[in-house]
Parts: sequence; C-alpha cells; structure tokens
Amino acid sequence: MSKKLEKITTRKENFADWYTSIVNNAKLIQYTDIKGMMVFQPNAWAIWEAIKNQIDVEFKKHGVRNLAMPTLIPLSEFQKEKDHIEGFAPELFMVNQIGDKKLDNSYAIRPTSEILFCNYFKNIVNSYNDLPIKNNQWCSVMRAEKTTRPFLRNAEFHWQELHAIFASENEADSFAKVILDVYTDFVQNYLCIPVIKGLKTPWERFAGAQKTYTIEAMMQDGQALQSATSHYLGQFFAKAYDIKFQGQDNQMHYVHQMSAGLSTRIIGALIMVHADDQGLILPPDIAFNQIAILTIFSNKNPQLLKISQQICEQLNNYRLFEDHSDKGIGYKLAQQEIEGTPICILVGAKELVNQQVVIVRRDTHEKINVDLTDLKLIIPKLLADIKRNIYEKAKKDLEDSIVFVNNIEELKQVIAQNKMAKAFFDGTKEDDEQIKLLTNASTRCIFDETQNGQCFYTNKKTNKLTLFARAY
Amino acid sequence: MSKKLEKITTRKENFADWYTSIVNNAKLIQYTDIKGMMVFQPNAWAIWEAIKNQIDVEFKKHGVRNLAMPTLIPLSEFQKEKDHIEGFAPELFMVNQIGDKKLDNSYAIRPTSEILFCNYFKNIVNSYNDLPIKNNQWCSVMRAEKTTRPFLRNAEFHWQELHAIFASENEADSFAKVILDVYTDFVQNYLCIPVIKGLKTPWERFAGAQKTYTIEAMMQDGQALQSATSHYLGQFFAKAYDIKFQGQDNQMHYVHQMSAGLSTRIIGALIMVHADDQGLILPPDIAFNQIAILTIFSNKNPQLLKISQQICEQLNNYRLFEDHSDKGIGYKLAQQEIEGTPICILVGAKELVNQQVVIVRRDTHEKINVDLTDLKLIIPKLLADIKRNIYEKAKKDLEDSIVFVNNIEELKQVIAQNKMAKAFFDGTKEDDEQIKLLTNASTRCIFDETQNGQCFYTNKKTNKLTLFARAY
Repeated sequence: MSKKLEKITTRKENFADWYTSIVNNAKLIQYTDIKGMMVFQPNAWAIWEAIKNQIDVEFKKHGVRNLAMPTLIPLSEFQKEKDHIEGFAPELFMVNQIGDKKLDNSYAIRPTSEILFCNYFKNIVNSYNDLPIKNNQWCSVMRAEKTTRPFLRNAEFHWQELHAIFASENEADSFAKVILDVYTDFVQNYLCIPVIKGLKTPWERFAGAQKTYTIEAMMQDGQALQSATSHYLGQFFAKAYDIKFQGQDNQMHYVHQMSAGLSTRIIGALIMVHADDQGLILPPDIAFNQIAILTIFSNKNPQLLKISQQICEQLNNYRLFEDHSDKGIGYKLAQQEIEGTPICILVGAKELVNQQVVIVRRDTHEKINVDLTDLKLIIPKLLADIKRNIYEKAKKDLEDSIVFVNNIEELKQVIAQNKMAKAFFDGTKEDDEQIKLLTNASTRCIFDETQNGQCFYTNKKTNKLTLFARAY
Repeated sequence: MSKKLEKITTRKENFADWYTSIVNNAKLIQYTDIKGMMVFQPNAWAIWEAIKNQIDVEFKKHGVRNLAMPTLIPLSEFQKEKDHIEGFAPELFMVNQIGDKKLDNSYAIRPTSEILFCNYFKNIVNSYNDLPIKNNQWCSVMRAEKTTRPFLRNAEFHWQELHAIFASENEADSFAKVILDVYTDFVQNYLCIPVIKGLKTPWERFAGAQKTYTIEAMMQDGQALQSATSHYLGQFFAKAYDIKFQGQDNQMHYVHQMSAGLSTRIIGALIMVHADDQGLILPPDIAFNQIAILTIFSNKNPQLLKISQQICEQLNNYRLFEDHSDKGIGYKLAQQEIEGTPICILVGAKELVNQQVVIVRRDTHEKINVDLTDLKLIIPKLLADIKRNIYEKAKKDLEDSIVFVNNIEELKQVIAQNKMAKAFFDGTKEDDEQIKLLTNASTRCIFDETQNGQCFYTNKKTNKLTLFARAY
C-alpha cells in the first residue's frame, strides 16, 4: 500500500506503543467498528496459515482428524455444566433474534466448543472399539473483553481446539501431555520461541479441567505469555453430557476426555519475542516471504530484471517476494525490515560487475557479498543460521531473566527489573492474589522439576517450584 | 465407528432419501440441537480441506491473498446499502446481548462479507498504485433457512469469498470471469463434475451485483445445482461505502469491485453427480483415502501384514487407509464402497501364492488381479482412468439431458422426464415465475453462445439461449 510508514516507537521509549506500531506498520491488523473485532490482514493471516499447516501435519501423525462444529450453542446446553457456564457467562455473545423474530431459546456464539464436541461424541460413541476419538477444528471463538489488544486480547480470535475421548484416565491424561509436547516442539522449533513447560495452579485451570498443562514464553519486557494449553478434563463433561461407552466388561462407562488449544495470541508472542525497533523478525519457517529480491534502479538497467529472474528460478523452493519498483533501495529495504523478511537479496549494477549480489540478514542486519553461483548453497545455511540465532538469543534472554527468590521483597525487586521469578510456593488462590497486589506478578505455572524446600510466602514445606511473572 | 450401516435407499426408490442415507452412512454430517446447524464430520471436512487446498493454489497464481474478517457486522453498517440489506434481512442471525447486557446497536452474523471488505478496502486504499487489491477468506456464514438439508441448505455453511477492487470496470469484470474460469477448471478437473457456464438473469443475481456469472451442474435426478458464482459489483458498494482512490489524473474515483464464492454446497453436488446405490464415489484428487489396503484374515496369516507394509511403502505418495481388523472382507469392502474410496487393494493368501493382489475399482466395481511388482505402475494409470471415467459418464448424462424446447408444452414434458431444457427466452421475472408454476423449472442461466431466434414464451425475437431446470 502506498500509505507512509508511521514512526516506530522504540521498545525503550514505550513497549506497548512499540507493539502497536509494529502491528500497524507490518500491516497485520486493522480495527473495525466493533470493539475487539479485528481484520487479520494478509500478512498476519499468512503467518497463521503457516502455523496451521505445520500443526496439522503433527496432529495427523497422532491420529487427529479435523472437523467443523457449528458456531452457535443453545444456552440451555451451556447450562448443563455449572462451572463451565460460570466461567464463560459474562463474556458470551448472545443471539436472541433471527430476522425480526425473537427466539424463545437464545444461542451463544461459542467461546470454546467443549459442549458441541460432547454432544457429538455422545452421538457417535458406542463401544470401546470406537475409542479413542481424536478430533480438532480450526475456527474463531468469541469472548467479550473489557480492554482489547491485537492478537493478545481480541473479542474474536482464531485458534485450533483439539478434543479427544478415551476409555481410560491414563490414555486421556497422556494424550494431553503428548499434545503439549507437540506445541512445545512447534513453538520452539518453528517459531523459535523458547518456553517453560508446566502445570497451571488449580485456580488458573480452564473452567472444567482437572489439570491444565501450559507452555509459557517470555516477552522482551519480561512479561509471560501463555502460549498454548492442554487440559485433562477427566469425566467431568462426560458425566454432565452423558458420554458413555460399553467396555470390554460389557458395562457402561463414562469416557475420559482432554482438550487443547493454541490461538492467534501466539502471533503476539512472535512479535514481542523477536521483533526489534526496525520491525518484525519472522522465523524462516513461517515467514510469508522468506526471501525478498530487491533490484536497485532496475528501471535504468533492465539487465537486473534478467538476473532477478535467474535468482528466482534458482530459489524457487522458497517463498519469494520481488520488488522491482522505482522506489529507492533504502525504502525497499526498510519495507522488508518492517515486515520481517529473513533475507533480502539486493541486485545492483555495481556488484553484478563481479557477478555478485548483496545479502542482508534481517536478524543481524549483516550485509554479505555473495557470488551468484554460490546463492543456492548459501541461502539454506543462512536461513538455518537465522533460525538458530533468533532462538538462541531468546533462550538466553529467558534463562537470564529467571531469578530464584526466597521472599516477597526479592520477588518485588526481580519483577521491578522486568524479570521473572522461580520460587518454592505452596500457597492458595488468595495468597496468589495478595502476591499480585504486592508485586504485579502472579503464578504462571508449576515447574515439572521438584525439589524439597520451603514456600517463600507461607513458609510451609513444599517440593513445588513455581514461576511468578507479570503476564499478558 | 461400530454403529451398523443403515440400509441405503436406492436412487430409483427415492432420490431424496437416497441422498440422506449416503450422507449418514458415509459419516459426512451429524445434526445438532439447532435447526440447520450441522457438524461437518471428518470425512466431509477432509473433502472440503482438499477443495480448499487446491483452490488456494489457483487463487495464489492470480495474486489473491487470504485474510480473515470478523464474524459480526453492525446492523447500522448493513443498512447503508438498501438492496443488500433487503436481500438478507429476514435471514440474519442477530446478536443483541453480551453476557446479560443488552446492546444498543445489534450485530448481524455475516451472511456474506461485502460490507466488511468494503470498510476494510476504504481504510487501506489511497491511490491507483494500491490497486488492484485481491483478497479471499475461508469462513462460515449464516442464513436462516425454512427447510434445511445437509450441504444443500445449511443455516451455517462454509465457503470462500473472494473480494477484489480495481481501478477500472474492465479489470473488475474480467477478473470476475477469470475466477469463474478457475471454478470451472477446478470443478471439472478435480471434482470431475461437468458444468454449464453462463450469466444469471437479472432477478437471479446476487443482491447488489451488476452481473452474476455462474456454473451450473446437473444432478442424477435432472435437477440443476448452482456450483459457484462470480459477481461484477460495479461501483454499487463503492458508492454506498465510499471506497475512493486518487487516479493518475489526480482526481478521486470510486473503485470497481467483484466478489466470488464457492461453498460446501459443492459437496452436495459431488454426492448427487457421482454416488451410486452402494455409496459415495470420490474423485481421486479429493478423496480423503485414495487407496484402501484391506487384508483378508491377516489375524490368521501375519505374512499379509508384511506384504501390506511393503505396499504402503511403494505407494507412500498416495493417501492410504489400512484395515487389518478381523472383520470379514465383504464388510471391509462395503465400508470402503460407502465412503467412496477410489481403489481397494485386497491382500489375501490365495493371490499371494502367485505374488498378486486383487484391485477393486470403486467406479466400475471391476476386480483385477495385479502382480505386486506392477502395482506402482498400475495405480496412477487406474486413478487417472477412474477420474476420466466418472467425468465422461457425468458429461454424457449432462449432454443427453439438455433438450431444446420450442414451447411451454415441450418444456413441461422435458422437465417431467427429469431432464433440463435449452430455449430462446427473453421474458421477465414474472414470466419466469409463471413458467415455474407451470413446469417446476426456472431459468438457471443464460448460455454464453448466442443465436438468433424467438422467445419460446413471449415469441419476441431474441439471441439469448437460456437453461431451464428444476434446481436445488
């Protein structure tokens, strides 16, 4: 588009404004007339489609099949499960009318689809032979929000929700962990975002879950962002929605259930973990343009177009973008920087004398002269190196920022320094709320590792190590 | 699932019941508690995903980028365009409430997204340099329906809607035709459904369109099914929603617009064009399982599993399904027949003595003994032949069924024989309605070809040849 770039606020100046200016300048989101309802522009949607494609591949390996549920849930169905409706009621978008006809029974736009899956499973499961059933859908859900922010808090957001039922608790709980591992591998290896795996405290669980597993990432401002969750639901919904099967013992049993989701919030994490004051930095695997080929005054030198064409043919297994417009090379490069393209290839007359082009890395801003004949060899190495580099950088940031704390004063200090804290903790929901009032930080997850120690807040003996942080 | 197959009604007995029993037995759709809101089960959704993937490839070749619009439209925005709101008002699902709070301004769940795209385009377009803009989204839309049928008439259905804006009428209209060609090629070459291309009569146009191009397919009961449409919208929406750009002449101009869509209705066509009294017949390109490998009593003969494994490795570039359960081979084969798998490979001890397997074609029910060593060579040829065969069969049916008629009596006769009619026609909407009352058939489209003749109904001179048919 021809609209001029707004100035990008630096991260130091104001992290929140920086985030907003990245979202605007990289053409990710446009607002609409309804609060919290946003247009996911092509640049954002291409990232989401790349995420979707890769996760689908992984899900399929685990026998998960996609389907599509309706968007609406009768309110009466919602009310069958008390905890679940209590968790969501205030946020529900309600359909009360079709045309000018008022409905006797209202419908809720799904805030999540457990109920729809439960009613579906109930209809299709009969015996243990039918189990397990593992389904997933990619869709949008709606939850009204008081304050909204692109990707982080949209009234309507996109996600996948995986729902599966099993004959035994062990299978269901194990599969919840398997899917958390799928998320962990994907987020770390494809999005290059290092994460902490753990268990949510009981009061931070999904409404209706027995266990909620989570992966937490750290943003450049030291805040945590819950990046994906996987829930063991037990027989909670099975009992409320009567999902039974005939076991090998010929008796009827309730199924054991799990669900798991990863949403467009992760694009917020992608921005806040990798981007810099020049714009987005996209991991090569999910960048919509992996390589941009930018000619320098090709209007004065048509030979450059021919060379560009040859480069495109050589690199046709990558997602390429070409800019042969008559804009200055500085402008073209800035455009690619803001949109996060991992590699730019500058094609100019000067270097072509030596049969060379200039490669600019997005992550390090490094410029390298490369022989045309070496391009095909060098590009995959460079992309792999960019991937490794942005992951390692984020991993170092994460590791450096986790500080072990022994008391509330230390926690206050650590959080004030935009870091995260690790502490022995065995407190209650009320303790957690009190800690948040004092420090702005709250429990993010309980680490997998256990050690013997003493709760930093209650002084009770405990083996639970807990992550405290401010959080999005 | 272990639920037993229901008996499939034959097409001769009752075409509508046959359709329903195919939908149920092939596990395509489950109903929910809300009228017209259905679960697209994994078998149906896999077909839709295959359609989506292929169409996306084609759209990308034409510079179309995907994005995602919100699901809700403020009613006040809807009301800006009179014809458009009149077309959709009675069918709109209205959101009047969030939590227990009534809204001052209602939102409509999108029945189509012209308005959202218009407001978006308005925000991002400035000058002729920004044009054209070509976007598409895959989503669901809602339109309340009095009677509902799986795929054909869902209150919520899935589709893609492509919206594009241009500097000139010619570009916009041409692109509407380009996209109709994309649909035509896809539907004919991938879904193996022959179609008639044409223009809708003014009264059958999309609400707000200047021209609606359509492709019409013929079902086995002689009824037409509108399979995809592409609309030239002129400056109609541009004026209502104020979408202007600065031209090369430095003046402000309204954009010219088009939109186009193909929906899950096409799965209904897929069933009603190809399926037979044994079940679905899926075109190889979009079959979720292209080849099923069925062992005959592998529990008594573990060697068969080893051979199956080798076959899978040989054919690993296809979507494979394996059934090594202890069910009888007749049951296994019937299961694949109902689900429409193009090729079954039966692996049994008897044929293995000669290093052979039995291949069963879904389209012809033909059984062929094939040497194991020839499999890799024969499979692609067979799949190509199945594709060609089901297309040719449907094409012959279509061609045989179109009868030229000279008067209303002939039309009545032709329609009563479950055929379609071609006629010179230059009547009005009222004439069309009258013809429908007399014959059950109505105008489906105006053929591309023109000839000089006389309207079969009004006797006026005309060069327009029109397709008349009963229609879904």
